[in-house]
Amino acid sequence: MLQPILHQLNSKYIVLASTSPRRKMLMEQIGLKCKIIPSNFEENLRKEDFKTPLDYVTETARQKTLEVVNRLYSEKSSRPDLIIGADTVVTLDGEIFEKPKSRDHAISVLSRLSGSTHNVITSVVLVTPETGDPPFKITQFSTNTEVWMGELSQRMIESYVDTQEPMDKAGGYGIQALGSTLISGIKGDYFNVIGFPLHPFAKELCKLFPDTSA
Amino acid sequence: MLQPILHQLNSKYIVLASTSPRRKMLMEQIGLKCKIIPSNFEENLRKEDFKTPLDYVTETARQKTLEVVNRLYSEKSSRPDLIIGADTVVTLDGEIFEKPKSRDHAISVLSRLSGSTHNVITSVVLVTPETGDPPFKITQFSTNTEVWMGELSQRMIESYVDTQEPMDKAGGYGIQALGSTLISGIKGDYFNVIGFPLHPFAKELCKLFPDTSA
Repeated sequence: MLQPILHQLNSKYIVLASTSPRRKMLMEQIGLKCKIIPSNFEENLRKEDFKTPLDYVTETARQKTLEVVNRLYSEKSSRPDLIIGADTVVTLDGEIFEKPKSRDHAISVLSRLSGSTHNVITSVVLVTPETGDPPFKITQFSTNTEVWMGELSQRMIESYVDTQEPMDKAGGYGIQALGSTLISGIKGDYFNVIGFPLHPFAKELCKLFPDTSA
Repeated sequence: MLQPILHQLNSKYIVLASTSPRRKMLMEQIGLKCKIIPSNFEENLRKEDFKTPLDYVTETARQKTLEVVNRLYSEKSSRPDLIIGADTVVTLDGEIFEKPKSRDHAISVLSRLSGSTHNVITSVVLVTPETGDPPFKITQFSTNTEVWMGELSQRMIESYVDTQEPMDKAGGYGIQALGSTLISGIKGDYFNVIGFPLHPFAKELCKLFPDTSA
């Protein structure tokens, strides 16, 4: 749905404040050209301080993005027309699962998710320049997708973990890779499960950068 | 979930009876090595002869696959350990949408799907050798996924069609490509919407080729 404004968008300076190779791939998939500037935010918020996983991911995404915003806005060079930030968590029964810390941790996370329904929540932060103080506007939204994982044997879990695929992924699986066979279905936005919900993102872009040629 | 039997599977002669580049890509994604042998079946069954879209796609998938099976089983050379066939349709209110025939047809299909929920049905056929007559066993199953398309403007539809992406795809969109922004959500198997449901396929493979090392 971005085709009418894609030419206009690609004449702008757009920053993706994320090191995730999956988010970079998704931007390429929809034809959006971004410069990648990773956030230096440490992602060390205490989960216990938040009432819900949604509150936690919302604040983490905001902090990650604002670190990049504050850095770029304090420089003399030209300000980006759009800075995109995001954070994704996997959650089950109120517990938050991020990237596994070890082989054993990955096995225990996948054993928890096996045969049940978990949720994937991504919070997206879009920052555009504005006159005033602060000199920018923050648009933030979150997307929740239910994911149903099939019943997996211990041997399936261990041999999947041994592919190394789980190690850099929230929840310990990659739905877009070998892990695709583990997932029996989802309810909601698929790209959110990869790490970035494309449809709501495109809708926000259409509002932030209206089609001037129409 | 195929890791425990993947080595065993990749020592076998597996045929994918489909020319779809998306199905080939999905097999590669899960690490399964297949030889591609396209079906010569004409796909000209009369839709009016079938009570439901499911009946139609089931019979089309079966005929497409059996054409390849009959050809390969009549040859002197070694028979495949597994022949995989499939057909996918997009359906809304009982109507079946296959590949668009023209630019105008693609626009009219997308205008119908815009802002509503359609279904994607794939029927998968797995053929393995067996002693007896016929000398093979057919395993067939189908998967249905609900797909919610966002509300699209005429200009969004036309400019998307002009990328040419819709032309070789059932329903006139590619969920895994530029079309990803059009889809607000799904309920069910995501890979089914691309053209091949991976989780139920992997489950069937685990039954047909049990893990002998466990």
